[in-house]
Amino acid sequence: MRGLLIVISGASGTGKGTVCKKLLADLPKIAYSISATTRNPRPGEIDGKEYYFLSVAEFKSWISEEKFLEYAEVYGNFYGTPLNKIEERLSRGEDILLEIDVQGALNVKKKCPEGVYIFLLPPSLNELKNRIEGRGTENPESLARRLKNAVAEIKIGLEYDYVVVNDDINAAAEQIKAILTAERLKVARNTDKFEFEEDFK
Amino acid sequence: MRGLLIVISGASGTGKGTVCKKLLADLPKIAYSISATTRNPRPGEIDGKEYYFLSVAEFKSWISEEKFLEYAEVYGNFYGTPLNKIEERLSRGEDILLEIDVQGALNVKKKCPEGVYIFLLPPSLNELKNRIEGRGTENPESLARRLKNAVAEIKIGLEYDYVVVNDDINAAAEQIKAILTAERLKVARNTDKFEFEEDFK
Repeated sequence: MRGLLIVISGASGTGKGTVCKKLLADLPKIAYSISATTRNPRPGEIDGKEYYFLSVAEFKSWISEEKFLEYAEVYGNFYGTPLNKIEERLSRGEDILLEIDVQGALNVKKKCPEGVYIFLLPPSLNELKNRIEGRGTENPESLARRLKNAVAEIKIGLEYDYVVVNDDINAAAEQIKAILTAERLKVARNTDKFEFEEDFK
Repeated sequence: MRGLLIVISGASGTGKGTVCKKLLADLPKIAYSISATTRNPRPGEIDGKEYYFLSVAEFKSWISEEKFLEYAEVYGNFYGTPLNKIEERLSRGEDILLEIDVQGALNVKKKCPEGVYIFLLPPSLNELKNRIEGRGTENPESLARRLKNAVAEIKIGLEYDYVVVNDDINAAAEQIKAILTAERLKVARNTDKFEFEEDFK
């Protein structure tokens, strides 16, 4: 069976990083999406494992061939999420986890509508406020701005397939596992199971 | 939250009755759909529990008001699956299990597209043959006819949402439970969770 593209997102402060780490630890068959970069490999880094290492010319030609879901330049190096590589891995039956910001996930959905789009919610806005304040890096103005942004981001969640309230990390991970089990049972992903004629002859 | 209408179907011999009994035993919050009938209540039977007991005039008016998903006359009494009563129970948040034949389920899907439509498959056509033969009531002609019908019925499964291979009763029940968990997490069933403004003020 073709692998699942699992896209997990949520407003900042909803704990998507922690949930994704827990999922990867529990489900060894699922792996993170691998980014492409133009920076030099560090000792021990393997092409196609930590990153796809590209020359600047290659990276730019991938941009023009629309091979990236998204890309950015950071301190003179390019980084991007290569759709072509994700596609290759899905075809081989690998399940790929993509942890991405709210708006980015909607762009991915346009290109890969068969993916599984999961939106994480904080238990309440008060809880989200506490989590952001807990980081201790916010003044009142920036806290208010971040909360306002969070509410706007949460509205975008209505475009996703599933919503999981991240009240408890273990409960959230179990709910996501049930979603993945159910998605693998969708008729659209299992049309081969309805080919019974060969068997019948 | 509004309850789930869970519709389970499959070609004859796929064991849908056994799977449904297991689900009801494991998940006490889910209950069977209740039929309406014109036969007299037996001692101890309660209206709205075992059946909805209707007069013939009431039953016929429900037919003309299209309140039945399906109905039949058996030995002078009418029996039917009342859509209006299912609707009432779903609104109260009850989850309802409807075990129904393959074609009947598709009729239900037209009227209740928000239901969860699960199709059970036998592990193989040989296994289905063994199960039908095992009942010991079939001559070769009727066995061949039943198998041919089963293959035709299985094709209809492509119209359902999910497919579960009933190889092992416990595994099938666990897969169905994961489907129900996932369905309850669908954004479309949880739009109220995105109303954060009140909380923010």
